[in-house]
Amino acid sequence: MKLTRDELIQSVSGQMPEKRWRHTEGVMQSAVLLAKRYGADPIKADLAAILHDVAKYWSTERQEQLLREKALNDELLLYDKPLWHAEIGAYVAQTEYGIDDEEVLNAIRYHTSGRVGMTLLEKIICLADYIEPGRDYPGVDHIRRLAETSVEAALVAGFDSTINLLVARRQIIYPLTVLSRNDLVKQLELEGEL
Amino acid sequence: MKLTRDELIQSVSGQMPEKRWRHTEGVMQSAVLLAKRYGADPIKADLAAILHDVAKYWSTERQEQLLREKALNDELLLYDKPLWHAEIGAYVAQTEYGIDDEEVLNAIRYHTSGRVGMTLLEKIICLADYIEPGRDYPGVDHIRRLAETSVEAALVAGFDSTINLLVARRQIIYPLTVLSRNDLVKQLELEGEL
Repeated sequence: MKLTRDELIQSVSGQMPEKRWRHTEGVMQSAVLLAKRYGADPIKADLAAILHDVAKYWSTERQEQLLREKALNDELLLYDKPLWHAEIGAYVAQTEYGIDDEEVLNAIRYHTSGRVGMTLLEKIICLADYIEPGRDYPGVDHIRRLAETSVEAALVAGFDSTINLLVARRQIIYPLTVLSRNDLVKQLELEGEL
Repeated sequence: MKLTRDELIQSVSGQMPEKRWRHTEGVMQSAVLLAKRYGADPIKADLAAILHDVAKYWSTERQEQLLREKALNDELLLYDKPLWHAEIGAYVAQTEYGIDDEEVLNAIRYHTSGRVGMTLLEKIICLADYIEPGRDYPGVDHIRRLAETSVEAALVAGFDSTINLLVARRQIIYPLTVLSRNDLVKQLELEGEL
């Protein structure tokens, strides 16, 4: 099913609370801005941003069923539910909305955890999710300032804020988040930015 | 080569600066105390503690050569040097000092990173390394207090202090440290201690 952008927005926004849709609009805005700043495709950034949280407010049962039955990454079931929707979002984007651009699908798939060897578009969606205008948490302004000059440095700071929060709350840290963060730290070291 | 305890201490202490040997004496003291408190073998705890840092002050070249040539865990070479000496220490304990007790060898091997499924002795050596009387860093007294009632809760706090430090310094986080920490968090959740 191929929809116009307006129809897609209509369909996706109906699957989450109004507040979460406002967050998505913020991610769209930040993602397009970052894409223009760093030379990624703003159309793809916009599309990935629209869809990134499409499955976030689906019921636990529906998300769990998809992870189990659709040969998705069901290792995620060992981790907290907030990690599931990214993998499911990519699946839904492809099967329900006919998105076949792997760059866009992977930007949705890795928007929460990142991965080793992130593409620029993946970094941008992940970072936009951390810094969209509606976000308000300790350190967000520091991450926004870093995002003005380095998407990698800003994203390391974003992942670090997640790791710090999980440590403070004694919650499980998703190992891929640490691997993604380490990979970006190494990239920055190679570029002499750290 | 089988040595008496005094001969072993003589041999190991000669391979590090005096200050580091005082740290080792602290780890011996804390490890024996923890072993008695939690029901591990104090003799094994003492032996693992004596040997845990035997290779720490060996030259980078000597450590690197052993990791490469002796079929040890050479993935460690991708990570910072402070992680290497634990693996090498276990090798040296076995080959140079004739220690054949796997429990003791593994307590040396995993004293820095931990691992998923740590034995009580491994936890005790790792924790003693965090809390021995000579240690002085932010949060150490909190970890010492936790160690009075739960080796797992204290060790989670120890690993968390390491993770926080590496985040603050923008250094690479060894993934096994995070996996070990997550595993202990899960154990505590199961026991209702968190």
